[in-house]
Amino acid sequence: MEHNTKVKIGLIGLGTVGTGVVKVLKNFDNIEIAKIAVKNLNKKRDIENLDESLLTDNPYEIVNNPEVDIVVEVIGGVEPAYDLLKTAILNGKHIVTANKELLAKKGQELFNLANENNTVILYEAAIAGGIPIIMPIKTTLAGNKIHTIEAILNGTTNYILTKMEKDGVSYEEVLKEAQKLGYAETDPTGDVEGFDSAYKIATLATIALNQRVDINKIYREGITKICARDMKFAKDLGYRIKLIALAKLTEDNKADVRVHPMLVPIKDCLASINGVTNSVVLEGFPVGRVMFAGPGAGMFPTASSVLGDILAISKSIGSNEMLPLMKCAHNVNALQVDINDTQNKYYIAITASNTPGVIGSIGEICGRHNISLASVLQKGIDVENTADIVVITESCKEQNIKSAISELEKNSNILKINNIIRVME
Amino acid sequence: MEHNTKVKIGLIGLGTVGTGVVKVLKNFDNIEIAKIAVKNLNKKRDIENLDESLLTDNPYEIVNNPEVDIVVEVIGGVEPAYDLLKTAILNGKHIVTANKELLAKKGQELFNLANENNTVILYEAAIAGGIPIIMPIKTTLAGNKIHTIEAILNGTTNYILTKMEKDGVSYEEVLKEAQKLGYAETDPTGDVEGFDSAYKIATLATIALNQRVDINKIYREGITKICARDMKFAKDLGYRIKLIALAKLTEDNKADVRVHPMLVPIKDCLASINGVTNSVVLEGFPVGRVMFAGPGAGMFPTASSVLGDILAISKSIGSNEMLPLMKCAHNVNALQVDINDTQNKYYIAITASNTPGVIGSIGEICGRHNISLASVLQKGIDVENTADIVVITESCKEQNIKSAISELEKNSNILKINNIIRVME
Repeated sequence: MEHNTKVKIGLIGLGTVGTGVVKVLKNFDNIEIAKIAVKNLNKKRDIENLDESLLTDNPYEIVNNPEVDIVVEVIGGVEPAYDLLKTAILNGKHIVTANKELLAKKGQELFNLANENNTVILYEAAIAGGIPIIMPIKTTLAGNKIHTIEAILNGTTNYILTKMEKDGVSYEEVLKEAQKLGYAETDPTGDVEGFDSAYKIATLATIALNQRVDINKIYREGITKICARDMKFAKDLGYRIKLIALAKLTEDNKADVRVHPMLVPIKDCLASINGVTNSVVLEGFPVGRVMFAGPGAGMFPTASSVLGDILAISKSIGSNEMLPLMKCAHNVNALQVDINDTQNKYYIAITASNTPGVIGSIGEICGRHNISLASVLQKGIDVENTADIVVITESCKEQNIKSAISELEKNSNILKINNIIRVME
Repeated sequence: MEHNTKVKIGLIGLGTVGTGVVKVLKNFDNIEIAKIAVKNLNKKRDIENLDESLLTDNPYEIVNNPEVDIVVEVIGGVEPAYDLLKTAILNGKHIVTANKELLAKKGQELFNLANENNTVILYEAAIAGGIPIIMPIKTTLAGNKIHTIEAILNGTTNYILTKMEKDGVSYEEVLKEAQKLGYAETDPTGDVEGFDSAYKIATLATIALNQRVDINKIYREGITKICARDMKFAKDLGYRIKLIALAKLTEDNKADVRVHPMLVPIKDCLASINGVTNSVVLEGFPVGRVMFAGPGAGMFPTASSVLGDILAISKSIGSNEMLPLMKCAHNVNALQVDINDTQNKYYIAITASNTPGVIGSIGEICGRHNISLASVLQKGIDVENTADIVVITESCKEQNIKSAISELEKNSNILKINNIIRVME
């Protein structure tokens, strides 16, 4: 430590992450928790020797407290966090937050306000939990033009998909189990519909691509339609299904940012990311391809990142200059690619009549829409004399797939399009 | 960029890495290369529009040049680099270096000198090439107590081992090919005997364990004794053989730091690191286990890390305070564990007479030395009626293995101990 006075923390939120932060800060003599805002003052806390006089149920006592140097916000959600952090910044406080939704929706406003007030906002914990990813992009990789991010940013969905593949069971069954184990919330929408991943990739892409990515323009698709059969077909074809957060810089410098399930080739390092682990793969020049993996959530991994941010700010408080590398407003708005204009390979699972020529007509219809097929597999015939057919296309435009699908649906031999999933190359 | 004057670089060395640095710096208007020291002024350089007037064959023109802010040293080796960098630091210059040997052998002296002179030494490129690892440890992970590092830090040996496993060919054969491809040097000693990995883990362990690790006390064993048969046996048992750089903090806070081949369980993420890729796995509290992987060498990946360090220093030159996080002298000397006192599982490949009871006597001898066996496999009988026996032990003390081996060697039914390789748990 470089300075002698204690740095004072105001902590907003004492849930899982907040509790972790209190526990790990005990080992740091030069950092003091001045105040902790909680929802319920009477709740029993799992923290040894917690000084109850620190607790308040009025978070404005923290953001308006002249003693507080750094406000650590771990409550999540846009309000009241947004108003609290604005107030804190206007009061000259530095911010450490784990709030991905707030950053995705109000990041630009907050970063600009912080710049104007010469304070910094750090948020390593908001993206990929304990994995160092924001700071490496801002420091070691600062000279790179990063053009691709492929990431697994949500532990809940990765746990569900891993379990579905391993045990061959349905989405619904695994979800119930994950809820029992505390890996999924009672209302799992935020995770399973991809909102959580979308918030994270919005902020990660903004910093990595160096353009502000609009959360409202991110295409998002969850995992609820993936079934055990898709898992099995994918495996047979040499893939695993993962919920992938993607960001690519196109040749004309547009940002293609999206969240959706993908078939990931089994040899790709992301295919080996199992359970609640997160991973981020970055590709750029001059570095090439680098990968980061680790715990994406949990009390202590998240506290590790919050702690790193607190220490970084603490070390710079001694000097009058704020670390320039901590500033992070991006005032160039990205031109974001519409999902219909993206290029992908596709997995299409079809139920068809077991009629000669059905594969031929699938090929013909796809051909008419400029889609080449990489493989077509008939995966068995069932009792009603219908056949499961799995198609993997070559890379083609999303809007071509959509028009081909609508033509396939009109074909009398095609009984059902069961699923369409993009395929990682 | 936060300041308006150009930062001036003096580059020592224009080999592969130096050339990469010149090429990538072209895109940064606020950084100027003031001078480049080369060995041979007449050598043809693969750099477009290189201003030849920048070249000198006297590197002291750089370290004594009052215009130079940052000396970038990419020549490698202890001398003359050590004297050059000492001179540069005494002249108030900041240092960016990719020189792992110098850091391992003279790091402490250089870091202390830099602290005294209020300059910084950054060295992201010295360890794991393009992978951000030093800066994450100093920033995001700064609050952690890191207790374990398991890493693949040498691309040449990992290429050789990957190829041996894939193609089932001998070490000698693959080495020759690697030399042809430029992946291995004409004298491959530095790589294949583990010196390069040892230099890197010395510095990496010093920063991660927060104690100065003495390169002379690091146990080191190379890959030259690994044969195609070991590869096959390992694979059959569910392992891959990798050259692992290891650093562990023992319960009594000693540093167990070493480099040697290991059987890595095929499900461990390090087992999937193929070819010239490097990887570092860190384990600590509160973060848990995090993994980094990427290109460990090469012109552009290494230049990426050099560039990140140059930019970090450049951004701080505007302020009078040097970034405290860049300081890195470690004045506590680690108590290093002797290899004989380490605990490991072992793979032992034995050629024995095909006699009844030979496996029994192996078990009995091991038992006498307090070694439990996890598995004993007879791997076929050859024409001369000898049998290959592969033993995997439970975790035991290295000195017990040594005494057991010397007893095994005296047993008349044991014809040869072919190899002993430690096994990762």
